[in-house]
Amino acid sequence: VHHVSVPGLSGDRFAVIYSVAAENEASARQRALDICLEQTVEFPPDLLPPGDIPDHILGRLEAVEPQGSNRYQVRISYAVEITGFELTQLVNVVFGNSSIKPGLRVERLALTAPLHRAFRGPRFGRTGLRELLGVPERPLLCTALKPMGLSAARLGEMAYQCALGGIDLIKDDHGLADQSFAPFRERVLRCVEGVARANHVTGEHCLYLPHLAGPLDTLQERAHFAREAGAGGLMVAPGLVGLDAVRLLANDNTLNLPLLSHPALLGSYVTSGDSGLSHFTLFGQLMRLAGADAVIFPNYGGRFSFSRGECQSISDSTRSPMGHIRPIFPAPGGGMSLDSVPDMLQLYGSDVIFLIGGGLHRHGPDLAAGARHFRELVSVTQHST
Amino acid sequence: VHHVSVPGLSGDRFAVIYSVAAENEASARQRALDICLEQTVEFPPDLLPPGDIPDHILGRLEAVEPQGSNRYQVRISYAVEITGFELTQLVNVVFGNSSIKPGLRVERLALTAPLHRAFRGPRFGRTGLRELLGVPERPLLCTALKPMGLSAARLGEMAYQCALGGIDLIKDDHGLADQSFAPFRERVLRCVEGVARANHVTGEHCLYLPHLAGPLDTLQERAHFAREAGAGGLMVAPGLVGLDAVRLLANDNTLNLPLLSHPALLGSYVTSGDSGLSHFTLFGQLMRLAGADAVIFPNYGGRFSFSRGECQSISDSTRSPMGHIRPIFPAPGGGMSLDSVPDMLQLYGSDVIFLIGGGLHRHGPDLAAGARHFRELVSVTQHST
Repeated sequence: VHHVSVPGLSGDRFAVIYSVAAENEASARQRALDICLEQTVEFPPDLLPPGDIPDHILGRLEAVEPQGSNRYQVRISYAVEITGFELTQLVNVVFGNSSIKPGLRVERLALTAPLHRAFRGPRFGRTGLRELLGVPERPLLCTALKPMGLSAARLGEMAYQCALGGIDLIKDDHGLADQSFAPFRERVLRCVEGVARANHVTGEHCLYLPHLAGPLDTLQERAHFAREAGAGGLMVAPGLVGLDAVRLLANDNTLNLPLLSHPALLGSYVTSGDSGLSHFTLFGQLMRLAGADAVIFPNYGGRFSFSRGECQSISDSTRSPMGHIRPIFPAPGGGMSLDSVPDMLQLYGSDVIFLIGGGLHRHGPDLAAGARHFRELVSVTQHST
Repeated sequence: VHHVSVPGLSGDRFAVIYSVAAENEASARQRALDICLEQTVEFPPDLLPPGDIPDHILGRLEAVEPQGSNRYQVRISYAVEITGFELTQLVNVVFGNSSIKPGLRVERLALTAPLHRAFRGPRFGRTGLRELLGVPERPLLCTALKPMGLSAARLGEMAYQCALGGIDLIKDDHGLADQSFAPFRERVLRCVEGVARANHVTGEHCLYLPHLAGPLDTLQERAHFAREAGAGGLMVAPGLVGLDAVRLLANDNTLNLPLLSHPALLGSYVTSGDSGLSHFTLFGQLMRLAGADAVIFPNYGGRFSFSRGECQSISDSTRSPMGHIRPIFPAPGGGMSLDSVPDMLQLYGSDVIFLIGGGLHRHGPDLAAGARHFRELVSVTQHST
């Protein structure tokens, strides 16, 4: 077998920190070496031709550390070139085949400048979204138009009421797609109109964000229709349309709209605890790389099961240093009550989007009054903490 | 609150069978009712306006049955209209937010004619792929070009050898994307050339299937480049580019190529066991709806952890009745050895694609000889069983 040299390798490497279930350090090391193979050459190591493939292309085990009972943290580095500098292939290298092996979890990506440079990241981020809204400091308020089954006209009227009451971001419920009872285009027109009418009264800059959940070949068309109609942003669920769809929309200069990511169908990556992706990587690092300006996730204490610590790690990840890639807003949803706001402000800080859905309706049939109440509540609590 | 009627509801419903972790039947029933809400209106039930929304739009609990210790099987039906007859929204209704709740698993979709009609499904399926290959009966053989790091020229030579030895389907390793050391276009040209040269010698119809793992905005362009260059099919990883990308490619009449789906990044849906999607739904039902003609998954007994029973359920799902939607090939990969072929033939039948990667190289440096050996092995075993 001849020596193989791989042209164009810069020597730049990035790393992934995995958590590995193993009975002892030797077994953890073996699992880590399996990841090195599985995520790169996927080939019997003794049959690799000598040269750059085993020396550089193959994943490299950098460190193994005990992490608690039967858990080890391993750090593996990869040549940046094997990602092709594409998001789809980057996630493939990070976890493609290893996602199929139980007991392996991606804890954190340790990317370096060459990879950061390959991605634009969020177009607006925290600062840009605040500028669009004209809200420099306080927590932002978001609600969802629902329930599914209402007509576009009813949803538009609901958008008007919510905007009138001082909500900053009004999004479609994630279950609204292009159903006959409230078709995408009609819904966008009605909701844009409702929000514009309210903004005219309030003097504020509430944004309406329709949900883009259609076939891939309609995604850009629907996005541009929404922009031209006057939508202030877009909601996208990467679990439904693919993470790269977020990047595609974020990179679109003629679109130029803030993006809110929704966690639909992403839960399976984080629910098992010992497999999958960490909350930090999925809801922070990957969403920022893809270009979401805000990330929705279930708040602790609500009807989902995220812990306070997991929400803290998402919050940390939305603002951790990532080269030129902007910090984004955490948008915890559900589980909000009068009592929970002070603790949420302590955890997330004031750079947060409070997402309130059913709770707004619980306040009474006058949604504008419910929204005012919600905004006042956050304001009072913020100033008393 | 006024009565709301939702226009356009046909009364047609489809069902999803979930497995639910619960301590007793009452608690299982409560979790099931939560799914009914979560997957549709996501709204406090007592605040829903009376009429069609609670009566039809809301998910409907049809049955609860004990399924073993602390597990219940529940059947929930949904109005077909809430899917908007789009694949992205169908999977959203089936499992969007519920994916975030531990202990809920989709066991099976029970779709009905109106939903089947909304999807073309696999363009070729088992019969069509056999016709393309001119192989009416025997199991098909597939291999992957690797390791990553080889040049396009080396991969093309490898494709030639494998085709010469009688492999039917030669695919890129799923780690090959558009890296500088073997760029997509150059790789396609070299591999198409290698396979064509071998087909000229053998008189067979081996197909080369490049991996489409690029940014969404290059997907169709790369697919058509491959087709025009002479590629015989395409491999797509729905976990990387989104399930709807498969549908988009399958529906493309000017493309008209068979599609092989790869499980990269899909593992987290099935590894936890008590959450996520069943093997039956993910690798069979959803892949067929999307339009894959063959589905790759890890075989039992190899370096992944799928059990024989799980592989059996995938095999069943590739051919279960789904209206006009064609049966597709199961393509179990890994874990093949001399000893395992008889049992695999018994499990999968002869409508199977045997995917052999590293094992082919293990046979020796002459890949054509390895391929011949592999084909003979399968042929002998098939006729002796």
